[in-house]
Amino acid sequence: MEQVYLTLNAGSSNLKYSVYDAQVRHKLTAGKLEFKVSPSDSPDENALSLAVDRVVALVENTFGGDCIAAVGHRVVHGGDFYSQPILVDEEVLVRLKTLIPLAPLHLPAEINAVEIIRQHYPDMAQVVCFDTAFHATQMPLAQWFALPRALNEQGVKRYGFHGLSYQYISTQLACVLQPEHRAKVIVAHLGNGASLCAMQDGKSVTTTMGFTALDGLVMGTRCGELDAGVVLHLCQQQGMSLNEVQQLLYKQSGLLGVSGVSSDMRELERSCKPEALQARQLFCLRAAQKLAGLIPALNGLDAIVFCGGIGEHSAATRTMICDYLAWLGVKLDVHANSVAGAGTQSINRIHAEGSALGVYVIATNEELMIAQQSAALVSPH
Amino acid sequence: MEQVYLTLNAGSSNLKYSVYDAQVRHKLTAGKLEFKVSPSDSPDENALSLAVDRVVALVENTFGGDCIAAVGHRVVHGGDFYSQPILVDEEVLVRLKTLIPLAPLHLPAEINAVEIIRQHYPDMAQVVCFDTAFHATQMPLAQWFALPRALNEQGVKRYGFHGLSYQYISTQLACVLQPEHRAKVIVAHLGNGASLCAMQDGKSVTTTMGFTALDGLVMGTRCGELDAGVVLHLCQQQGMSLNEVQQLLYKQSGLLGVSGVSSDMRELERSCKPEALQARQLFCLRAAQKLAGLIPALNGLDAIVFCGGIGEHSAATRTMICDYLAWLGVKLDVHANSVAGAGTQSINRIHAEGSALGVYVIATNEELMIAQQSAALVSPH
Repeated sequence: MEQVYLTLNAGSSNLKYSVYDAQVRHKLTAGKLEFKVSPSDSPDENALSLAVDRVVALVENTFGGDCIAAVGHRVVHGGDFYSQPILVDEEVLVRLKTLIPLAPLHLPAEINAVEIIRQHYPDMAQVVCFDTAFHATQMPLAQWFALPRALNEQGVKRYGFHGLSYQYISTQLACVLQPEHRAKVIVAHLGNGASLCAMQDGKSVTTTMGFTALDGLVMGTRCGELDAGVVLHLCQQQGMSLNEVQQLLYKQSGLLGVSGVSSDMRELERSCKPEALQARQLFCLRAAQKLAGLIPALNGLDAIVFCGGIGEHSAATRTMICDYLAWLGVKLDVHANSVAGAGTQSINRIHAEGSALGVYVIATNEELMIAQQSAALVSPH
Repeated sequence: MEQVYLTLNAGSSNLKYSVYDAQVRHKLTAGKLEFKVSPSDSPDENALSLAVDRVVALVENTFGGDCIAAVGHRVVHGGDFYSQPILVDEEVLVRLKTLIPLAPLHLPAEINAVEIIRQHYPDMAQVVCFDTAFHATQMPLAQWFALPRALNEQGVKRYGFHGLSYQYISTQLACVLQPEHRAKVIVAHLGNGASLCAMQDGKSVTTTMGFTALDGLVMGTRCGELDAGVVLHLCQQQGMSLNEVQQLLYKQSGLLGVSGVSSDMRELERSCKPEALQARQLFCLRAAQKLAGLIPALNGLDAIVFCGGIGEHSAATRTMICDYLAWLGVKLDVHANSVAGAGTQSINRIHAEGSALGVYVIATNEELMIAQQSAALVSPH
């Protein structure tokens, strides 16, 4: 019987999974189970527990009992403990729980999924793969806020996220980009969550996401970069509670808040309301500004790579961002851009001849990274 | 008897003043009165009242009774009401008071100074000059946060500050910069407060300061750009009060917080502690990143102008910032940079032959702008 690798990405209202073959070459199946969120808006352990059991049963029914060589979990935050994926044991679980204050919206469900597997299938190997780990190569300076040193040392610093996506793109740079485009690259992971990562020779140098998943680019419902004084103002002058402000900044801002129409770029592109266009313009201007702001850390730029749902599928967004970067000498190939992401090709060169920078669209693959990292830890060879 | 213009800049612990001649060509005198801050840390009306009376008496004793043609006040925030300086009347005072929630640390003392003059010298003409006004030319997009539209419409948006300094520099661009350097300029006002302003043909296009004076660059004791999630974390997870966080971000962060040595760039340059160097590096990296991030709004850049206490006097800071901008083709003239700001020359070209951008040091003059704006309103001719 063939072994498979199961990847899990547990959220507060759904569980995404995928299954890879023993060589981690082919995705055999994938899916998403939705479940009701409890009224308290906290992850519902029981619903998650049922979902995990259903996924394991589905995989074992399809590929045979005991087929699962390891379960790889996407975990948003490894704090200062983990700059590599790691096999789960009791100590790892204890440490992960201490990180919950760093990502209270994401870590509880992710840790629950690990615990549920541990209780229900005690012999199953589990690996946790961190969205912060890829950024561990950054210089301390890039990770600092201008806060008192003691706070930085206590972990209030710029960790960065989307690391599994960036790590996958990093593995692709050397094989798919023209040789002159590989050294100084900015990757734009644009989806419902969005960030940029500046890479020198495939390693993270700096990124736009900060301590939480709130910072940097405009996102579907998150505000991105915001004057910290606004948070103080909303609480001190407008009488909002911290929970209300958190809800506002995470759930009611971004493309949704600016447009009043939708958090979904596809809907905004279809809308004829001026507010929808303004939200797209703000998204693209901010992306271009933040992208330009990463160049000093690289001292130059050879190429831009777009990935993520919006990055891979919205030609209009790529065009608008590159228009704001015309001063860098970026020139898109209009046709190549318009068809990129529409077909089955996972790598697309979209810059025109004579462009000062390379511009590419690469389909990212976070699940493959999780499966590969899991396989490397349970069957190293 | 000659008329003079008196400018006042009222803070919570001091009152700065200057006196200009009737033609607003020469500064006749200037000074600063310090006074004790009351234990509540709120502006002490009585101490301010005594200071205002002392300044008026000093001016009238020196230049003659009734010599003051107008008092011009620096006011940090004009909100959406004022995009121009304005003569003070009762309605202006009422409106200004409604803006206090937008700048609760600065506006109370500034408004108090206006009221004190109005009570003690009811016939004296007063003009309020706003630090936000110069940025009124910005496109709405540049002023938006990615927050729900209703909040933007209620005034929670990026006003920008240091407008009197930028306006003065703007008046200098056409006469002192080489013709090819005048169109797309970024001005770096670097002092204890610090921000950048991108100007197209001398008009503000975008700036790094946001809704409050906390955003953007690293400052003496202010954090500048910060993940809004950090504010939530400090309150929700670390149990700090909003006032404690406000104190932390305004008074204990920035150069002081990172270095643990001083908020004063001169002291950091003299220090041999590695923490002092790190604070300077973070200041300069952030400045370069933010500067690069303004270029998309200008679609290019012709020149950089340094002003403010640090911008005018720290050659090492200018060098470090320009090193992070080497990829733009910036080349400093090492000698010109090292002597700029040291002598009496108020305008210095510091770029080398062959630099792709012009780089200048210009001594800013906010008091002259206030005196000129006051004169224009009381003796228009």
